[in-house]
Amino acid sequence: MVVMTSHNNLVPVAVLGLGAMGRALAGAFLDAGHPTTVWNRSGGKGEDLVARGAVLARTAEEAVRSAELTVVCVVNYDASQAILEPLADALADRVLVNLTSGAPERVRTAADWAEQHGITYLDGAVMVPTPLVGGAQALILFAGARPVFEKYETTLKALAGQAAFLGEDHALAAVYDLSMLDLFYASMSGLVHAFALAREDNVAATALAPYLNTIAAILPDIASGMAAAIDAGDYDGQEANLSMMTASVDHLLHMSRDRGLDTGQLEAIKAVADRAIAKGHGADDWSSTIEVLKLKG
Amino acid sequence: MVVMTSHNNLVPVAVLGLGAMGRALAGAFLDAGHPTTVWNRSGGKGEDLVARGAVLARTAEEAVRSAELTVVCVVNYDASQAILEPLADALADRVLVNLTSGAPERVRTAADWAEQHGITYLDGAVMVPTPLVGGAQALILFAGARPVFEKYETTLKALAGQAAFLGEDHALAAVYDLSMLDLFYASMSGLVHAFALAREDNVAATALAPYLNTIAAILPDIASGMAAAIDAGDYDGQEANLSMMTASVDHLLHMSRDRGLDTGQLEAIKAVADRAIAKGHGADDWSSTIEVLKLKG
Repeated sequence: MVVMTSHNNLVPVAVLGLGAMGRALAGAFLDAGHPTTVWNRSGGKGEDLVARGAVLARTAEEAVRSAELTVVCVVNYDASQAILEPLADALADRVLVNLTSGAPERVRTAADWAEQHGITYLDGAVMVPTPLVGGAQALILFAGARPVFEKYETTLKALAGQAAFLGEDHALAAVYDLSMLDLFYASMSGLVHAFALAREDNVAATALAPYLNTIAAILPDIASGMAAAIDAGDYDGQEANLSMMTASVDHLLHMSRDRGLDTGQLEAIKAVADRAIAKGHGADDWSSTIEVLKLKG
Repeated sequence: MVVMTSHNNLVPVAVLGLGAMGRALAGAFLDAGHPTTVWNRSGGKGEDLVARGAVLARTAEEAVRSAELTVVCVVNYDASQAILEPLADALADRVLVNLTSGAPERVRTAADWAEQHGITYLDGAVMVPTPLVGGAQALILFAGARPVFEKYETTLKALAGQAAFLGEDHALAAVYDLSMLDLFYASMSGLVHAFALAREDNVAATALAPYLNTIAAILPDIASGMAAAIDAGDYDGQEANLSMMTASVDHLLHMSRDRGLDTGQLEAIKAVADRAIAKGHGADDWSSTIEVLKLKG
């Protein structure tokens, strides 16, 4: 039997799942001084955490019952539900924080299951790589009942200095996560293509990088302006309109093709812009392309 | 006849082409106190600049002969060469700064023409919209003979506080410009798609924007890391490798498709990543995709 002794007045926590992220989360709780119980489906993990003060539970139920708040972070929602469903009784009247990555649809299903079993449920998305977990700059997004987030905010800030509450819809953390990744991969791909284009004219990537950063530096203002335009549905193009910008994309496309470079991303960007121009947005801002991104209702 | 009187020891300049950018450039020279002559192919332009102290030349040759340094900024290199070729004699032993936007190939042709006629030639690319021209934060890229840039750096800084010299290859400003635009449009398109994805789950663009900015904020570090990897040809994936990231792109693709959103850009990104994985880069960093962007030699 595991005997839990709370050494301080910090919330006793459990972490289910000791992959790289689960271990980082448990480590952050330990660093903050929380009584921390850990468990992993397959054995042989967590000994490093025990050396740092964690208790290794023999069963997931034992871990949950030792804690006031349980964090689960595993590979996907199939895995998290497989672990959680047998624990419904143990979790009732306790707090479950699911930091597993998954589709908004799966989060809503998990939240419905939790509600049916009287489990207080917050969903979350870890937005930083494992080495940053627990740090002041680490961002974890949370969604669910606001009073629960507020009650445990200090505990959750042990995991991420930037613990952000998004709203009552449990899926919001997953939605923001997806949208942020959407921009992330578009930019990652754009970065590499930019380096490839420059390389064709003998420009080293390290020479170009500081100039690419001037583009990254203007994105926040552009995103804020676009957001206001999109929410208002008012896409009035001022400095640069969609027709002018699409001509610029077409120029890039031709320059890339001339150099034998892949043009898939540029063609996809131009196809959307062309569709928006055909729909009458030529004199509007680039943000007007959102009106043609929805293909079916 | 136009009588030029230099009111101070600043370099007398001419600006050929009075479109929006030409007018902004001439205005910046006037603000800095340069004796400034302006000319436009079609009449009826430049009266506002005359009111601010500019001399309006009747011919391009008159403008060039009044100045030590001539800036030309017109719609494209066909237009700039049409203006410049009859001025070869007037430009000989003077300094020509071409800020017209164009392909690197066209810049090299223009530079060859200038060299054949004994014209000192700098090429440049204006990286900011007209309202920022002349400001401390304005960025204009220059390329050509370094001693010429250095001699006229103070004059050129009247146009842009961030007047940057890239190297001796005249096409470099155009190459950097293209590469920066490449990242710019990839990110613009990614931004709008991210807003569209969030909107499907009832998240307002203005609510999402601050979180998208956290992605923009990490791009400089990523670009620097990628640049070092690309120049070294060493793509060792550490935190996140291409296989894991491509699975994440695939997830985004399915989420977008489920919501009826355009997936062209994501499909293009995934196609490149899949090709890189097939070539053995699955455990490498995302920067390794540069190895499959070149389709033909």
